Amino acid sequence: MNKIIEDLKWRYATKKYDSTKKVSIENIEIIKDALRLTPTAFGLQPLKFIIVENQDVRLKLKEKSHNQEQVVDASHLLVLCSYIDNTEIHVEDYIDLIVDTRNVAKENLEGFKEYINNTINPIPLETKTIWNAKQAYIALGNLLHTCAALRIDATPMEGFEPEGYDEVLGLKAKNLKATIVCPIGYRHPEDRYQHLTKVRKHHDDLFEVI
Amino acid sequence: MNKIIEDLKWRYATKKYDSTKKVSIENIEIIKDALRLTPTAFGLQPLKFIIVENQDVRLKLKEKSHNQEQVVDASHLLVLCSYIDNTEIHVEDYIDLIVDTRNVAKENLEGFKEYINNTINPIPLETKTIWNAKQAYIALGNLLHTCAALRIDATPMEGFEPEGYDEVLGLKAKNLKATIVCPIGYRHPEDRYQHLTKVRKHHDDLFEVI
Repeated sequence: MNKIIEDLKWRYATKKYDSTKKVSIENIEIIKDALRLTPTAFGLQPLKFIIVENQDVRLKLKEKSHNQEQVVDASHLLVLCSYIDNTEIHVEDYIDLIVDTRNVAKENLEGFKEYINNTINPIPLETKTIWNAKQAYIALGNLLHTCAALRIDATPMEGFEPEGYDEVLGLKAKNLKATIVCPIGYRHPEDRYQHLTKVRKHHDDLFEVI
Repeated sequence: MNKIIEDLKWRYATKKYDSTKKVSIENIEIIKDALRLTPTAFGLQPLKFIIVENQDVRLKLKEKSHNQEQVVDASHLLVLCSYIDNTEIHVEDYIDLIVDTRNVAKENLEGFKEYINNTINPIPLETKTIWNAKQAYIALGNLLHTCAALRIDATPMEGFEPEGYDEVLGLKAKNLKATIVCPIGYRHPEDRYQHLTKVRKHHDDLFEVI
């Protein structure tokens, strides 16, 4: 079997972690680099990734996650946050980053900057929040693939209280919203879910070739 | 450098494709399998992936994609569609699929079915459409990682007219919405974008460790 498919078949939404096993610093760095390389609309990266190691904080977050044990038992807890709003300041910072990274003259990017601002400014706040959240889902797809390739377990979670996370982590004041929660670590031998056959739609129901 | 990071650094949003180069059938199958293995909320897979090879159709879609050449020049055009609505019929089909795949008694899944229906039924249609679209973005993150690992170029695109795509592909009648368009294939040697340094936020701006 192809290595990619083997990796993706190996992974599953882990329900019970072995709390004694920690993801190595080297692998955390690879995961961070992979998240950083996730493409986003216009390249704006309206995202922040919070890595929670502190157990007191994780206990508080567990209460906001329907008491799911993975939040505290996994090696690390990732909170994928997205921006509530995009402003011209973000675009300006992005243009400056391009200038620095590519060593180009800022004047040459004037048109690109205007194009982004003209696209973003008319969008209602709520729509921008949703658009930013979607970018976090690209990061999630990339994260889950990356973890699988590294044989690190992960549990993508939408079932948590975003307001509770905002409260515990003070996100709103930072223009952030907890969009996806993802504990990562190593499956417990007793997690019975690892033995279940993966359920996926048949090819005919999922693909159409024209 | 780690292979994963090497892959993700290799990729970029390709602007110009070599239209003479085709992705092999074997690699298309790997990409399809990878998309199929993408995890989604509850495992419902409210998605359909349309692979457009037909050039007449692609010419029509190009018109609905701000005339971007990649839509016709790439080897294959993927249209990642998500469901407009989720109904109890989809949940029923999903439960049947679990029964078939895992060879379990349907009675045992009654609670799970009820739980999904109770979660989904009160959600307003518009919110369900957005929720389903987010699942397509997980698939996109997985797709881009998969393509990079296979050294296949890809161009994730939000900049197209979803209504135009619906029109050309007859999506609405099938409860589908074109959410992301992604040409895949092989970069043209003349695509100057392949030589640009990737612009990404600094680690300090993107990560917070607690």
